[in-house]
Order: sequence, then structure tokens, then C-alpha cells
Amino acid sequence: MKRIGVGLLGFGTVGGGVYNALQSQEDVILKRTETLFEVRSILVKEKEKERAVKGVQSLITTDFDRVLEAGVEVIVEAIGGTEPARMYVERALEAGCHVVTANKELMAKHGVQLERLARDRKVQILYEASVGGGIPVLGTMGHFLKANRVHRISGILNGTTNYILTRMSREGVSFAEVLAEAQQKGYAEADPAADVDGFDAVYKLAVLCRLAFETEVPVGQILREGIRDITPEELELARKLGYAVKLLATGEQYGEKGPVSLGVGPTLLPLSHPLAGVDGVYNAIHLEGDVVGDVTLVGRGAGEKPTASAVVEDLCNLYRLPSPRLPLSGEPLLLPAGEAGGSRFIFMKLRDREVPEPEQLCRSLEGIGLEVVDAVSAHGGVAFILRRWDPSHTSIVVTEPGLELSRITSRPIQGVNLSQERQPEMEGVV
Amino acid sequence: MKRIGVGLLGFGTVGGGVYNALQSQEDVILKRTETLFEVRSILVKEKEKERAVKGVQSLITTDFDRVLEAGVEVIVEAIGGTEPARMYVERALEAGCHVVTANKELMAKHGVQLERLARDRKVQILYEASVGGGIPVLGTMGHFLKANRVHRISGILNGTTNYILTRMSREGVSFAEVLAEAQQKGYAEADPAADVDGFDAVYKLAVLCRLAFETEVPVGQILREGIRDITPEELELARKLGYAVKLLATGEQYGEKGPVSLGVGPTLLPLSHPLAGVDGVYNAIHLEGDVVGDVTLVGRGAGEKPTASAVVEDLCNLYRLPSPRLPLSGEPLLLPAGEAGGSRFIFMKLRDREVPEPEQLCRSLEGIGLEVVDAVSAHGGVAFILRRWDPSHTSIVVTEPGLELSRITSRPIQGVNLSQERQPEMEGVV
Repeated sequence: MKRIGVGLLGFGTVGGGVYNALQSQEDVILKRTETLFEVRSILVKEKEKERAVKGVQSLITTDFDRVLEAGVEVIVEAIGGTEPARMYVERALEAGCHVVTANKELMAKHGVQLERLARDRKVQILYEASVGGGIPVLGTMGHFLKANRVHRISGILNGTTNYILTRMSREGVSFAEVLAEAQQKGYAEADPAADVDGFDAVYKLAVLCRLAFETEVPVGQILREGIRDITPEELELARKLGYAVKLLATGEQYGEKGPVSLGVGPTLLPLSHPLAGVDGVYNAIHLEGDVVGDVTLVGRGAGEKPTASAVVEDLCNLYRLPSPRLPLSGEPLLLPAGEAGGSRFIFMKLRDREVPEPEQLCRSLEGIGLEVVDAVSAHGGVAFILRRWDPSHTSIVVTEPGLELSRITSRPIQGVNLSQERQPEMEGVV
Repeated sequence: MKRIGVGLLGFGTVGGGVYNALQSQEDVILKRTETLFEVRSILVKEKEKERAVKGVQSLITTDFDRVLEAGVEVIVEAIGGTEPARMYVERALEAGCHVVTANKELMAKHGVQLERLARDRKVQILYEASVGGGIPVLGTMGHFLKANRVHRISGILNGTTNYILTRMSREGVSFAEVLAEAQQKGYAEADPAADVDGFDAVYKLAVLCRLAFETEVPVGQILREGIRDITPEELELARKLGYAVKLLATGEQYGEKGPVSLGVGPTLLPLSHPLAGVDGVYNAIHLEGDVVGDVTLVGRGAGEKPTASAVVEDLCNLYRLPSPRLPLSGEPLLLPAGEAGGSRFIFMKLRDREVPEPEQLCRSLEGIGLEVVDAVSAHGGVAFILRRWDPSHTSIVVTEPGLELSRITSRPIQGVNLSQERQPEMEGVV
């Protein structure tokens, strides 16, 4: 049996959850890995605060040096945000400790530098919990897709926005209404920007794509669009056309070491797409590899226990598995996301309540040279799919005579090719 | 760079796929694992047969001894079935070769003995491709759920039956009709028993549960029911009640080293369950662990490339990862699946075309002491959900005066507790 000393930074939801999981799973971990993880020191901001977890007072300190001196081989960082977390992680690695963290912002912004430092010091930094909570997606990419080139990643990476969109779609209520209720119940933050404006998903996408494409894309260069402008009418019309609207994070690479394209934004998925039915607080990641085809991982993207699970599994694997990391290749060429050429969903809210017949609208749009796949209308709104879409088409539609618009939204569509690809294998099922 | 000699047994869809994948992915594998896998010998039944893969004639033999003498460290078994595959695998392990196989029947029936032999000879036997094609479910259980007790596994493990049920449900056509068409197009075997009677799913469930529960359940003792008696009317009424009907493989363990219950059969899932929307040829496995909550893996369960992907990933991991296997604990107590106490779906086809009003039927059933949750009727059939179901209830319903039945079917319901569990976390989204 090995005894491993662990230092815990932060003792909130994640830190407390990790402490509890190490207690409750001690016997299983010991039996299966012959390792006993002992929390020897816990760094907090306020020493005297009331704790939900009892019997830890002797371990608590406000001095990071005391943690490093407590005979620890691994530091679990559960503070969140960039500073002081980044500084502590850097010091831990420099001191020769392994690091396990759930911090997506840290690993998105400083991951390359921290990974390099870890390699130099011959230790590991693992961060499964930073993306998709309990879903073992980083491990899957690092250990089970070694022989595959992953060329596209699509993910529902933020539970709060997925919950909001699910309720808007099922109950027909507005974004503002669901958000207010979620905030009141503590499901959404008082300042919801990190979630609803897509920052959280951007961090997670940056981490995923760095590992999949072996190249770094700075978070500031990732296209980002939130869900504030989505209405229940738009969701309803999209569904009538056969699509679900999700806050989708998408990363794509065009050929090995080729250019990449990354973005987070509201995106339509055919209802038959494996991500289209992922509702509520669930997160999911859809990976496309050149041999395996597509694999989707679904699970709880947040919460004390799923996050703690990922951290504790990382702890076990520090001592079981080889490092999953690969050296990065050079700077990638970054292509703008949502390029022309594919299909596009257009939703228009009309100023007058008289909505044109879908067939009539199709004919009229085709008359001005657009390729319309399908159109529907309801509640003073109209929606249609344009094939071979080009950004200029939006302005063409706006000036279409006879329509008085109060608003126009255009969204990319993902996964249509995927559905088509599936057909030859078994026709009729997409 | 390491050079590893590989012997291939069988050169059909799987064997040919593995050969092709080793060629097409050679550079990726080499870059990421510093290993070159060279196929040095291929065992076939008929030497002179025309091959889809060219340039391999010099490697082909009909003599197993020649394969072992070709300087191979790993044998990939891609013959299928039990004999002669079992004998070859045994001889390969005895000769000190690692083995990678896609053979579910072999690993379900002889896995314990072959694992033991491998351990004795200090080699590994890996078989990711035997369950769920390209989905890395065995690897996930072996390496990413070390600190979790997995207490329930539910899986859609057979693509052919899932395809048939999906088409029956979407198009309202009969089992016989879809099967005949699938056979004509080569999607289903001429003798469909292995798929439609649930044998294939039973083998896969046996493998999954042995690894998850660390105990062996002989395949002959696993409850097995196929999909031949399902009608489109039943699927429609189940959907109206909010459920999808799937050929579900379920394994459950009650406490560590506790009794287990395993079964394959048509089962209802709430439409909000992560497996309910897995349609067509897709396979999926839903794992419930005591810390992680639930994780679902979805992907292509069969086909040349997904299967080859899993085999080649296993090849890489033979040389990268520690053995994922744990010693088995003793013989488990086997509980019958589908026990009383839960909810049950009852579908009745009526002899006379006059279908009772659902409300009236509910009242009448409640009058004889049954707890009815919901009822619907259409097309001469009626369906309802009984709470706290007991096997005797089925006969009570049959004798209910006023109903002339031509048929009655009763199905278990899974995942209702799961949906309820999710509610506290985020109310309103199940």
C-alpha cells in the first residue's frame, strides 16, 4: 500500500466534495489501486468560517507554505478563477508536486505554460473535472483515441444555459423569466454573464481543442455568442423544422496540423443528432474521429459529486496511467467559424402580425435567387432554412419587399452532414 | 521506436478493417505512441479466396502454428464464435502473446478462464471491441471509474434490434416487415435469432457486468427476451404515455459484493432518459456510479471501422496502460430481474374493436385494487402503467370483466427513479 499526502486548496463546494469523496471511497480506492490518499492540509481564505465538513479544523491553514510543508505529493486546486490559483499551481509544480484541478479558466488561459512547467519538473497536471464535470472526456481523448485523428468536437458544455433553453423550449417561457427563476433558486449566478454569454463554454472548448488538435487557440480569439436573444418562438419554429437549438461549442480541424475553427453560439442540430436530446443540466461532448466515427459522452456537467468524482479519478490515475499529453505543434491558422456554404436557419419576427404563408415566402425568396429548404410560420414569426448560405443573404432577406421585420436572427446548423453520412450504413435511420 | 509483430486471425470485415486501420493510422500511432505495429501473419480458412485487401498474399496462411512462428507479440482474434477462436486464443496466451479480440461470445462464455490464463502468463487480453463497437466503455470502467462503485448498467447493445424498433416506431410498420427489408438489404442476418432474440445483447451484458461488479454471471442464467412480439401499436401507446421501448440490457448490484440481477428484454424508458433518444444503429451504455452520478456513452456499435478502431486502440494500450482487470470476488447471489414493486407497463390488444375510455378503465382497475398511473387507448389497443406492480396483477387484469383480450403484454420500466433523482438538483428538468 502506498500512502499519498494530498494538499487541498479551497474548501467550498468542489474542495469539500473532494474531501468527502476521499473518505467515502477510501476502501474502494485502496482495494483497486493499493493507494491511500490522505488530505494533510487545507488552504482556506478565512480560518474561522463555519464548515459543512466536520473534523478538519486541525488541517486548515491560510498560509500556502504550510500546505507545501505538510508532506504532500499532490495539490488539488479547488479555488477557481485565475489568481491566486495560477500562482499556487505554479508554485506547487515548481516544488515537484503533481496537480489536479477543476479550474477551466485557469487551464484555458494558462494551460500551455503550466503543462510545460509540469513536464520540466517531471510531474503531471490533470484537469478532467474542468470540462464536463464527471464526464471522462479528457481521459477518453488522451487514452482511447490515440489511433484516431479527431477532426471535430461539438459540445453542450454549460449546464445553466442548457437548463434555461430546455425550459424555454418545453414551457414556452421567455429567457428573462427562466433566468430570474433560476437565479432565485440558486441554479444561476447573480451575475449570469459567465454562463449565458458563453464565457464558461469558451474556456472548456479551448481546453478540449488544445488536447484534440494538439495546438493552442487563445480564448480571446474564439468566437463567442450567448443565448440572451433567443425567444421561445424561435425555439418552437426551429423544432417545427426538425431542429433543436443548443448553445453549442464547436471545434473543427481541417486536415492534420491544418487550420482550425472554434466557436460557441446558439446552433441548430437535427433532432436525430446525438446532442439534440441532451436536455436540462446535462452536458455532452460529441467527438468525431477518422476511424471510430462519432462517440458521444453524456453526464452531469457540474455539481459537488460529479466534479469530486473527476478529481478523485484523476488522483488515482496520477499513479496508474502515463501522462496523456502530447507536445503541441505550432500556432494554427485560425479560420472564422460559421463560414458560408453550409445551411443556415433564419428566424424573422414581423412587425405586422400578418404572417406570410410559408409556401408563398419560399417562392418569393427563390424568386430573388435564394435556395430555401423549408419554411414555417407561427405567432407573428417566420423561419426557414437557406441552403448554400452566404452572409450577404441576410441583408437580401431584410430588404425583401412586403415583409416588415422587427427582428432577424440567423443561426448556423451543425450535424446535417453527419446525418447524411449515416444513411448509407442503414438507410432510413438518421 | 518499438516494432511490434501482430498476428491476425480471420480476415473478414473485422480482420480486414484492422489491417486497413493499421495502415491508414500508422503515422498517427507512431507519432503518439512511438510504436509501429506490423502485421506479420494472417490466418484464414481458405487460402485462395479473393480478398478485398490487396498485397497481403505473402502473409496469408491456413496454419495457426505458422502465425505463432512469424515473430508476433500480439494476436488479434477476428474469427468470431467460440471454436476454434477459443482454442487459438488459449494457445496464443500460453505462448506468451498478448491477445486483442472483438469476440463477445468468446469473452462472455470463456472470459474468466482466458483472463486467468493471461494473468498466469503475465500477458494481457483486451476486448474493447466486443461491446459497443467503437464506444470505449470497457476502458472507461477499467480506468476512469476506479473510485466509483458502479451499481447499475443499462445498455442498448444491439444495433440491429434498435434499428428495427426505431423504424417500427417512426413508420408504424410491423416487426416482420422491417426485418424482411433489413435482411434483404443485408442489415440483418438470414437467421436473425442472435439479434432479435437477445443472445448478442446477453453476451455483451455478461462482459460488462463481470467487469463492473467484479463477479461472473453465466450467460445461461441471464434473463433473455427478444423483440418479436412487439407491435407498432404498443410502441405508439407507450410513447403517448411518455416512454420509449428499447431492447434494454440491464445489470444491477445491490451493495458491494451484494446480489446481482441481469436481464435483456423490451423495456420502457421515460422519454427524458439519456438512452430513450438513442435511435437507429447507435448503441449506448448508461453507467450509474455512487459518486459520478450517471454517465452515458453513445456510438456506433458495429461496422468495420468502429470495430477496427476499438481493436487498434486496444493494441496501443497494451503497451501504454496497466491492465484494467481486477480479480473477481466469489459467486454472486443472482436475483431474478424484473421483480415486483416497481412500475409496469401493460399493453392489451382487445378482441372487440370497442376500446374503453382510458378514464373509465382507470376507475374500473382501481376498483379492483390496482394503482393505475395513466392510461391511453387507440387502434383497438389500450395501455396503462401500474404502480407497485406484482406478477399476479397481470392475471387480475386479464379477468377484468368487460374486456375481451386477444393479447396482453407486460413490460418493466427503467430509469423512473433516475428522473426523480434529477429533480432536486434542478426542478422542472427531468
